[in-house]
Amino acid sequence: MPHSNTIHESLTAVFQVRRFPAEVSAGSGAAGRSRHPELAVLLWERALDPQKGTWSLPGGRLRDDEDLDASARRQLAEKVDVRELAHLEQLSVFSDPDRVPAPRRIASAYLGLVPLTTEPELPPDTTWHPVSALPDMSFDHRTVVDHARTRLAAKLSYTNIAYALAPDTFTMSTLREIYCAALGYDVDTTNLQRVLSRRKVITPTGDTAPSGRAGGRPAALYRFTDSGLRVTDEFAALRPPT
Amino acid sequence: MPHSNTIHESLTAVFQVRRFPAEVSAGSGAAGRSRHPELAVLLWERALDPQKGTWSLPGGRLRDDEDLDASARRQLAEKVDVRELAHLEQLSVFSDPDRVPAPRRIASAYLGLVPLTTEPELPPDTTWHPVSALPDMSFDHRTVVDHARTRLAAKLSYTNIAYALAPDTFTMSTLREIYCAALGYDVDTTNLQRVLSRRKVITPTGDTAPSGRAGGRPAALYRFTDSGLRVTDEFAALRPPT
Repeated sequence: MPHSNTIHESLTAVFQVRRFPAEVSAGSGAAGRSRHPELAVLLWERALDPQKGTWSLPGGRLRDDEDLDASARRQLAEKVDVRELAHLEQLSVFSDPDRVPAPRRIASAYLGLVPLTTEPELPPDTTWHPVSALPDMSFDHRTVVDHARTRLAAKLSYTNIAYALAPDTFTMSTLREIYCAALGYDVDTTNLQRVLSRRKVITPTGDTAPSGRAGGRPAALYRFTDSGLRVTDEFAALRPPT
Repeated sequence: MPHSNTIHESLTAVFQVRRFPAEVSAGSGAAGRSRHPELAVLLWERALDPQKGTWSLPGGRLRDDEDLDASARRQLAEKVDVRELAHLEQLSVFSDPDRVPAPRRIASAYLGLVPLTTEPELPPDTTWHPVSALPDMSFDHRTVVDHARTRLAAKLSYTNIAYALAPDTFTMSTLREIYCAALGYDVDTTNLQRVLSRRKVITPTGDTAPSGRAGGRPAALYRFTDSGLRVTDEFAALRPPT
């Protein structure tokens, strides 16, 4: 009976831009918290073999009565309140016959995003890790994180996906921190504001943020124009007729 | 034993821009061949139940010793020479528990592209169908075609994916026909040339095409600048430092 033992599972890389205490962060400052927020991924520690003590992405076995999207959401609900997920999308399928010890498991990988200001309650075995300093990870889960990060960086460049990492309203300074964290390199605030405004990805709310301790001019607040994912710069020449 | 009967399969929507005889084409002209090329998909007719006589996408059961990409290519090789595939990518997974009669089959869907001037040899049960006039299709295969077409249209707007539908060199008139067919609506040649040249998606070869019957000025030939898929207009402000 070939195939009879194959299991199908979901695995989700849930990302959030977060600040970490200095001791767990690779790019940290001296003040006990990292100077800049970092991209973080939600992991749980395996209490049992195989690979006891390694860290895994949330996920698990597909049930007979659900499809994969429903399964991914159900598995995530055990780790984090899924209402806090602003975005969930399928990545690719990981199907190497030897990716885990037998029985074979085919994993459908997902990318999930949680906004900056959300603080989900987590079970005791689960915590956020900066992607710059991942712990020893289970099986091929680090590869799934790499895929998810690559997809996120690509979509930051041609969609409005950052809405799912940002608070409802934000200053350009905060938005820049989110882009820098998610991309892993520095981005200029003025350029970011110019390109996102020109493409109508963000809109000024008309309000300003309360002044910080340093005083100075109050910063303008922005919001994302759309709350669903869209390609922000399709070729104008290729737009469908209206 | 839950799950023990679940099968994993690949299903590939292979697209090519082709001319069809007028009688099988919805958007056809009066001359026995369609006036414009159309997007076509490769289908085979089921000789046996279930759903005998309906048309299916190429694909089939994942083997124990292969991953899904290898399986998709192996299954396609039975229908069309896979060396003629200029592009193959995973779409999403179709996992509704009731998508086919029991046993459950989880389908990893793929998008495949064949260039305009290629004429693959096909087995007797297999033929190209214009996506504008699809026959009675098996199970959820029409939904897979819709997903594949949506993905292709989206990628035409922010990547150079048209290289996989175009010949090695082409006139702007031919390239416009390919875009119109793949998008399903009219595109202006001048706009297309301007946007693709500005983004360095296409490059003039320096040669011209032989004049047609109508005579007139010989048309400049172009080629795609890159032969691999790339996002053609990521935000300049978000480019990684070099």
